[in-house]
Amino acid sequence: MSNTTEESFSDNFSSNSMVYSFDVLQNYVIQQLKKESTTIGSKRPSTLYKPIEYALSVGGKHIRPVFVLMACNMFRGNIKQSFPTAIAIEIFHNFTLVHDDMMDLADIRRNKPTVVKKFGENIALLSGDSISILSYEYLLKQKMNNSSDILQLFTKSALRVCEGQQYDLDYEEKEVSLQQYLDMIRLKTAELIACSLSLGAILANAPTEDVNHMYNFGINFGQAFQLQDDLMDVYADQNIFGKKTGKDIVSNKKTFLLIKAMELANSEQKKELAYWIKIKDFEETEKIKAVKQIYNDLNIKEITRKSIKKYYHKAIIEMDAINVSPDRKKELILLTGKMIKRKK
Amino acid sequence: MSNTTEESFSDNFSSNSMVYSFDVLQNYVIQQLKKESTTIGSKRPSTLYKPIEYALSVGGKHIRPVFVLMACNMFRGNIKQSFPTAIAIEIFHNFTLVHDDMMDLADIRRNKPTVVKKFGENIALLSGDSISILSYEYLLKQKMNNSSDILQLFTKSALRVCEGQQYDLDYEEKEVSLQQYLDMIRLKTAELIACSLSLGAILANAPTEDVNHMYNFGINFGQAFQLQDDLMDVYADQNIFGKKTGKDIVSNKKTFLLIKAMELANSEQKKELAYWIKIKDFEETEKIKAVKQIYNDLNIKEITRKSIKKYYHKAIIEMDAINVSPDRKKELILLTGKMIKRKK
Repeated sequence: MSNTTEESFSDNFSSNSMVYSFDVLQNYVIQQLKKESTTIGSKRPSTLYKPIEYALSVGGKHIRPVFVLMACNMFRGNIKQSFPTAIAIEIFHNFTLVHDDMMDLADIRRNKPTVVKKFGENIALLSGDSISILSYEYLLKQKMNNSSDILQLFTKSALRVCEGQQYDLDYEEKEVSLQQYLDMIRLKTAELIACSLSLGAILANAPTEDVNHMYNFGINFGQAFQLQDDLMDVYADQNIFGKKTGKDIVSNKKTFLLIKAMELANSEQKKELAYWIKIKDFEETEKIKAVKQIYNDLNIKEITRKSIKKYYHKAIIEMDAINVSPDRKKELILLTGKMIKRKK
Repeated sequence: MSNTTEESFSDNFSSNSMVYSFDVLQNYVIQQLKKESTTIGSKRPSTLYKPIEYALSVGGKHIRPVFVLMACNMFRGNIKQSFPTAIAIEIFHNFTLVHDDMMDLADIRRNKPTVVKKFGENIALLSGDSISILSYEYLLKQKMNNSSDILQLFTKSALRVCEGQQYDLDYEEKEVSLQQYLDMIRLKTAELIACSLSLGAILANAPTEDVNHMYNFGINFGQAFQLQDDLMDVYADQNIFGKKTGKDIVSNKKTFLLIKAMELANSEQKKELAYWIKIKDFEETEKIKAVKQIYNDLNIKEITRKSIKKYYHKAIIEMDAINVSPDRKKELILLTGKMIKRKK
């Protein structure tokens, strides 16, 4: 019989039968990541490695590496031994952020200047490239019989993330169907989450069938997670959210809400949406208010929530099919359930 | 007793005892690379993969993948089976070119528009990222007992190439000693050549000692190769060279020639060099003529040639130490000997 523990990780994760909580594993990831970042930051040339240390230190929830460890733990794998893969995933995620911020001309990430803003384009480009290669350096530290499976899955997912980013860029300039949007976020967001979860399962030597269920759990949860993100931009309580809402509306970002609204709108609403998308000179609060009113009239909030629930339900069906006792699944179900209802 | 053949590769490289020539292997690489590029170019989204196909199709001598195969052949390895690694190296090299052209704001490469010029910054960034990951996809197709060694060496070299590029950027803005310059080109240029040659040896299951000799051969040859590049920019016969000489002088590029000249110059020559480096508004031919005159007065051409010979001599000592019969080494020695005397 296993136990969930909120204790510190002073036991070194020596027990494969123990079920560790998100918080414990997140703390572990934060501490270890800090160590690794410092080591990386001390390498030469510092003009290359200091920006990498900076990129790896901007914080965040580190859900992807924690997913690796939680999935590994679910299948009674060795958490400590799986750490190089967890770090590789986090590093790769940071690589995508550094280069995405270049493409988006973003100045701020998590309340701090982005790498491109702080160090300039050339450094952001080259340190991003190096971060991508560093993720392989960590993957190669993962000593496993099935290391080839790990590298194959990681590489396939990495390419898919790039494909998703490309679709996202392409869709900025053209009309997009809901299906195209969902396929895009599947690649751009859900893929790396699914990859993290299935890598954790592979590291614990889970049967192929269960690895696939974990992957599909991740894809469906990942879709739900992104739709929740879209939803919060418009409907979050600004006090809890901690940042301004309506940013996606202001920038005409194609989200589930906007595409669905365009689909459901009558000709008058369509005209009004088109007006707000086209106009260059506007009062931000006025535009947000007007578009949100159309969303409200079309019941977009409830439709989005329904879709989130649908994807999460699919995810849970995959989780149910996994041949592991419910008490070992509890932590992941609890966490992901919270995440699709998160308010910030 | 082995034979060197100039035949087509219709024999499928079935003989491990045959020594294949550079031309035969280069033809093979060109044909296979064309196939792979077409396959890659047909993937979706085409907005991502067509630019990659373009990047892989701009030509060049493909010396790195041919080095993989020649080294493999030297140790009686299976050339055909080693092809994924050869392609991986070529793909990685193209990744560095795509992103380097972004940093250098280069419009033209091999008489064609660069990826960044043709497709814009975002596509150059993202397709470059994808090319880097694709190189791992090819490496992972390499089925070998020692595939971990291959991945480790490749990853270490890939990072070193990025470090070399960073030093190159750093050195644009400051004074650089000859040793710093030589260390930089060792990372930026020689490393991937050494990596290619030693990967070929690893693929043929050469003993570790010989793999290391191949690596050192590659490093020393790579240094000589880069110095020859520096030399040609100033002293090549423009009719044979096929492009304008003096470009490095015009752009104040730190080369072996410039750094050595600064080191040897008397105070008057130093002042004149400093004048030409500082001046923004000048007649290109006048600047080239003046700087070249200082190089001539300081005997820089002969000094550079001497240094090239010194590095190549070191390379040959490494080659001599390899426990393989001379007739199997002949092709590589012939080729590299030509390359350090090349006129274009």
